[in-house]
Amino acid sequence: MTLTSTDLSSCLNNVRDRHPLVHCITNYVTINDCANALLACGGSPIMGDEPADVVDVTSICDALVLNIGTLNRNIIEAMHVAGARAAELGHPIVLDPVGAGASRLRTETAAELLEVLPIAVVRGNMSEMLALAGASAATRGVDVNPEDAVHENNLAASSSFARQLSSRLNAVVAITGAIDVIATADRAVACRNGVALMGSITGTGCMLSAIMGAYAAANANDLFSATVAVVACEGLAGQIAAERMGEKDGTGSFHTYLLDALSNMDAAQLESGALIEEL
Amino acid sequence: MTLTSTDLSSCLNNVRDRHPLVHCITNYVTINDCANALLACGGSPIMGDEPADVVDVTSICDALVLNIGTLNRNIIEAMHVAGARAAELGHPIVLDPVGAGASRLRTETAAELLEVLPIAVVRGNMSEMLALAGASAATRGVDVNPEDAVHENNLAASSSFARQLSSRLNAVVAITGAIDVIATADRAVACRNGVALMGSITGTGCMLSAIMGAYAAANANDLFSATVAVVACEGLAGQIAAERMGEKDGTGSFHTYLLDALSNMDAAQLESGALIEEL
Amino acid sequence: MTLTSTDLSSCLNNVRDRHPLVHCITNYVTINDCANALLACGGSPIMGDEPADVVDVTSICDALVLNIGTLNRNIIEAMHVAGARAAELGHPIVLDPVGAGASRLRTETAAELLEVLPIAVVRGNMSEMLALAGASAATRGVDVNPEDAVHENNLAASSSFARQLSSRLNAVVAITGAIDVIATADRAVACRNGVALMGSITGTGCMLSAIMGAYAAANANDLFSATVAVVACEGLAGQIAAERMGEKDGTGSFHTYLLDALSNMDAAQLESGALIEEL
Repeated sequence: MTLTSTDLSSCLNNVRDRHPLVHCITNYVTINDCANALLACGGSPIMGDEPADVVDVTSICDALVLNIGTLNRNIIEAMHVAGARAAELGHPIVLDPVGAGASRLRTETAAELLEVLPIAVVRGNMSEMLALAGASAATRGVDVNPEDAVHENNLAASSSFARQLSSRLNAVVAITGAIDVIATADRAVACRNGVALMGSITGTGCMLSAIMGAYAAANANDLFSATVAVVACEGLAGQIAAERMGEKDGTGSFHTYLLDALSNMDAAQLESGALIEEL
Repeated sequence: MTLTSTDLSSCLNNVRDRHPLVHCITNYVTINDCANALLACGGSPIMGDEPADVVDVTSICDALVLNIGTLNRNIIEAMHVAGARAAELGHPIVLDPVGAGASRLRTETAAELLEVLPIAVVRGNMSEMLALAGASAATRGVDVNPEDAVHENNLAASSSFARQLSSRLNAVVAITGAIDVIATADRAVACRNGVALMGSITGTGCMLSAIMGAYAAANANDLFSATVAVVACEGLAGQIAAERMGEKDGTGSFHTYLLDALSNMDAAQLESGALIEEL
Repeated sequence: MTLTSTDLSSCLNNVRDRHPLVHCITNYVTINDCANALLACGGSPIMGDEPADVVDVTSICDALVLNIGTLNRNIIEAMHVAGARAAELGHPIVLDPVGAGASRLRTETAAELLEVLPIAVVRGNMSEMLALAGASAATRGVDVNPEDAVHENNLAASSSFARQLSSRLNAVVAITGAIDVIATADRAVACRNGVALMGSITGTGCMLSAIMGAYAAANANDLFSATVAVVACEGLAGQIAAERMGEKDGTGSFHTYLLDALSNMDAAQLESGALIEEL
C-alpha cells in the first residue's frame, strides 16, 4: 500500500475541517511558536502544565503533546497526570524528547513516559532517538550530533533503526533532519522536504511536534499518513519561506515567512510539493 | 454623557505621555507579546511571578495585570500577594480569566481573585465571562465557544449581561470578540473594530489585557473610557495590519504588522478609526 | 594596547567557526529571543532551569548565562548548581542582573551569585550596575532610570565607576545604554553603536547577554575584546535594522530586522561599523 500525495492532502484538509484542540505541555522557549503553528495549520492550542489543572484541560481536548525541552518536577508530574487522562479518553499522545541524551533527567523522563503512556507518535532528531533506544549517543545539546545525522549513505540503516524503534515503542517514529525518516514497525518513508535554514531558528522541531498533535487527532485512523503529511507540510513551508528570502532578510524574516507558509498551506500545495519516497 | 472620539484619543495620549510601568503576572505563552505590546503603546512592562519578588515589583509600578493562562500554585500565590499590595497602593488591577470554564482551577482562581481583590477591569471572551457569571458555559479551550459569541442579533442581551456582570463584579467589563462589548453597571458600548485574522494568532487577547493595564494607570479617573479606548485601539491596529497583508503573507506577518500598527498608532488615527456605538 | 577593529572581527569569526553551545538560565519573557539570537550569531542554545537537570546540561556546554529577569526559588537554586559546575569546568559565566535595584530578591540574588561564582562578565544598564555597587539607585523596573543614564557629560565618571566595579567584582563590566561602557579594572572603552529604537522592544539586553556567552566561550583568552565585540555587533545590528524601517514599519518589524541583521553580520561589517573609543 503506497502512500499517495492525495493521502497527505486529505490529512491536511481534515485538520483544517475539524479544528482539533491540542493540549501542549511544552517548553517555555518555543511555547509561543507552538501555539501560533497550531493556529496556522487549522488547530487550536491550549497550554497548561500544573498537575491540578491538566486533567480538566486534557479532557476538553483532542490530543496531547508532551515536549520535555524545559522540565521541572511539577511539569513532569503534569505530563504523567495529563497522559493518564488522555490515555483513558483515547486521545493520541505525541512525545518530543527534546535533549534526550543531553541529561539523565531528560533521557529518563522520556523513557518513563514511553513506558507508562500509550504514546502514539515520537518525533525527534537522530541523537535523541538513539538516546531513547539506549544507545550511548552524544547529543549535542538540543541539536543533532553531526555524526548521527541521516544521510543518503546511511539511509537504509536509518530506516531499519526507525522501524525497530517503532516496533519496540509501539509508536509511529519520526526522525527529522536533513532527510526525515518516518516509520512504523513494518514500513518507512523518507521525506526530502525542508531546508537547512530551518536549523538556524529555534522551534522548528517543537512546532512540528505541536502540529503533529493536530494531525494525529484529525486523522486518528491513519497515524502513519498523518505523521508523514505533517512532516512534509512543515518541510515544504520551510522551502517556501526560504524562496522568499530577500537580500537583507535573515533568520528573523525566515521565522515569519515559515509561519506565513504554514498558515497559507493548502492541499494542492502539499500534493504537488511533498517529496516522499517509500523505503 | 456620550463617549466622544476625543475622549478616546486623550486616553491614548495619556499613556504615551505618562509611560506607565505595568507589572504583569501572565502566562508563558504570550508573555513576550505582552511586553512588546506594552512598549508599543507607550507603557513599560515588568514581569515577575515569584511571591517573594512581587511585593517589591508591584510597589514601583502603576498597574497590575493578572492573566491566568498558565497557572501553577506559586503563580496563584504571587497573584494574591501582588494584588493585595496593588490594592493598598490604589493601583488599578486588570484580570484576564484565560480559559475560565475550561478547568476548575482556572474558574475558581478567577472567582477567588475577583472576590478578594478590588479588580478594576475584567477582559475576556464571552465563554470566559459566562463562566465568571456562574453559567454552565462550555468553554472551547481558550477560544470562545461559537454558540456564546456576540452577534448583531444577541447584542442587546449581551449588553444587558455585561452591565449586570459589571454591577456584580464592581468592575469595568470588556467582552471581546467579533463585536466587543464594554460595560459598567449603567452603561455599555459596542466596538466594531478588529478583524477575524486576529483570532488566527495567539496573544491578541493577552496583549489587550496587558496594555489595558497601561491605559487604566494613565486614565485612572475614567476607567470606562480607558477600556473602550484600548479595545478600539487594538482592534484598529488589527484592521491596519490586515490591510497590509500581501499575497504571500500569512499569520507570521500579520503578527508583525499588528505590533507595527500598535506602535505607530496615534490620536488622529484612533479618533478617525474608532467604531464605537452606545448601547 | 589599543583595541583594533580586527580584534573585534576575529572575535566574531571565532564564534561563527566554533559554534559554542551556551546554557542559558534565563527569564521567560525573552527566552525565545535569546535562543534565536544565539543561533543568529553562530552559537547554539540550550535552556534548562531545573536543579536536577542543569549539572548535566552545563557539562556539555561551553558557557553559562544567568539572567535574573523572572526568578523563583527553583531557578535560583538551579543558577547556583549550574554555576558551581561551570566554575569547575572553567566555563565563562555571564550574569545579567535584570531589575537589580527593583526588588530585594533580584538585588540579593545578583549579589550572591557574584559572591559565590567566578562570574566572567556582567552586563546591565546603569541603574542595575549601581544597585550591584550598593548605591541606592532607584531602578525604573527593568529599564534604566533616566537620571542614571550614561551621557557625553558624565562619560568620564561612568568610565571610572565601571573600572572600579570591574575591579571589585573581578569581572568584565558592560554597562549598556545610549552609550555603552565596557571596562576591566585598568581599561575602559565607550561604544557608540546602537539606536534608541532598541529600547522600544523587549529583549535587546537579554539577547546581548545571551550571545555574550557565545563570544566569551569562543574568545576565552580575551574576554574584554569579546565583550566589546558583542556589544558593538548588536548595536550595529540595531543600526542596520533601523535603516531598513519603512513607512508602515513599527516595533514588530524592527524586532525582525534586528534578528536579520544579527544573523547576516560578518567580520567586514563589524570592522567598518564598530564605533569604539578608548577612554
